[in-house]
Amino acid sequence: MRDAYHEELDAIGDGLVEMARLVGSAMGRATTALLDADLALAESVIAADEKVDALHHELENRAIDLLARQQPVATDLRIVVTSLRMSADLERSGDLARHVAKLARLRYPDSAVPRDLHSTILEMGQLAQRLVAKAGLVIATKDVDAALELERDDDEMDQLHRELFSHLLDDRWHHGIETAVDVTLCGRYYERFADHAVSVAKRVVFLVTGEHADEFVPETR
Amino acid sequence: MRDAYHEELDAIGDGLVEMARLVGSAMGRATTALLDADLALAESVIAADEKVDALHHELENRAIDLLARQQPVATDLRIVVTSLRMSADLERSGDLARHVAKLARLRYPDSAVPRDLHSTILEMGQLAQRLVAKAGLVIATKDVDAALELERDDDEMDQLHRELFSHLLDDRWHHGIETAVDVTLCGRYYERFADHAVSVAKRVVFLVTGEHADEFVPETR
Repeated sequence: MRDAYHEELDAIGDGLVEMARLVGSAMGRATTALLDADLALAESVIAADEKVDALHHELENRAIDLLARQQPVATDLRIVVTSLRMSADLERSGDLARHVAKLARLRYPDSAVPRDLHSTILEMGQLAQRLVAKAGLVIATKDVDAALELERDDDEMDQLHRELFSHLLDDRWHHGIETAVDVTLCGRYYERFADHAVSVAKRVVFLVTGEHADEFVPETR
Repeated sequence: MRDAYHEELDAIGDGLVEMARLVGSAMGRATTALLDADLALAESVIAADEKVDALHHELENRAIDLLARQQPVATDLRIVVTSLRMSADLERSGDLARHVAKLARLRYPDSAVPRDLHSTILEMGQLAQRLVAKAGLVIATKDVDAALELERDDDEMDQLHRELFSHLLDDRWHHGIETAVDVTLCGRYYERFADHAVSVAKRVVFLVTGEHADEFVPETR
């Protein structure tokens, strides 16, 4: 049987997995709202982000409470501190999904994304969702291989982001400046979302192996 | 005389103030590099970000070490945990200054920012620098009034950001898509930089007053 300390630590882990699930779902739905110009769906994503924020605060309070009551040291201490950081990563991911939904709402009844970019944005949205789902799995299983895979998956996001820019900077771009601005911001939201998923996975790698992957710096333009 | 615990806490505080100074200087120099298309200056900002990252890691390690050795509770515990967060905010601010410098480098020998936007970007850069300088002061002095002022100062950044967008979306925009993309990203970097400065100040307010300013959500599009 596990002691109260480890039970509480498990509960915090479960909370993080739940946050990953929520923000993955939010990013998936935000992408659909963006591409389909679905106002109701966009509104629901925006409203649901409160739940992510609430969970973040709850986990923070539990982690700090655990530090105060149990005064962990060494690895146990690192786990709690790392949980605080993962919670912050996931909370910020939720904000980014909300940003995508707000862009959908802003341009309703139009879609902020022109038709010829739909497939790239759809891929970015789906990849973002897969990345954070994998990050959630990594939190749950401490699977270092899956965590390292996540970094490679992120290369795919960089590739999609470059694809988006090559559309934007193509001489045949005829969607005007406002759409270029929207697409630029949108691309950045997906990219940052992916960065946070990778960051979560890296933190797990560090906890399990004790090795700081210092060579990893999420690099965006 | 202060005990070892509080001396160490003061040292962490000093480190945070130093980080704020470094990232403020970086953002100021990045802005100059951007407007003057100064490659050497841009390179120096990019290289100097390593120092901010190193300081961040050092402060993290000291804070975790303090938690392990001293096992603080209540307010003392909150101070250490909050220091970790402020360090993360400032580390990210350094990244954003580096992003601005990288944009300057990318477009060299041209300036990424067209002449008619120079004054707006200059103002954003200067305001960003003032905001993080004030955040540094707030860390050093625990001055709640100054911290609350910072939120109002941030409204000015939002105003400048809107001004930037109105230029971008003006029918007379004739700088093409690439420049629109650059200016969009640039605007976002300054805005996020300001958000992190405000976030630092809010954390100090919470530490001093114990009140979570939950109504405050840094809102960006």
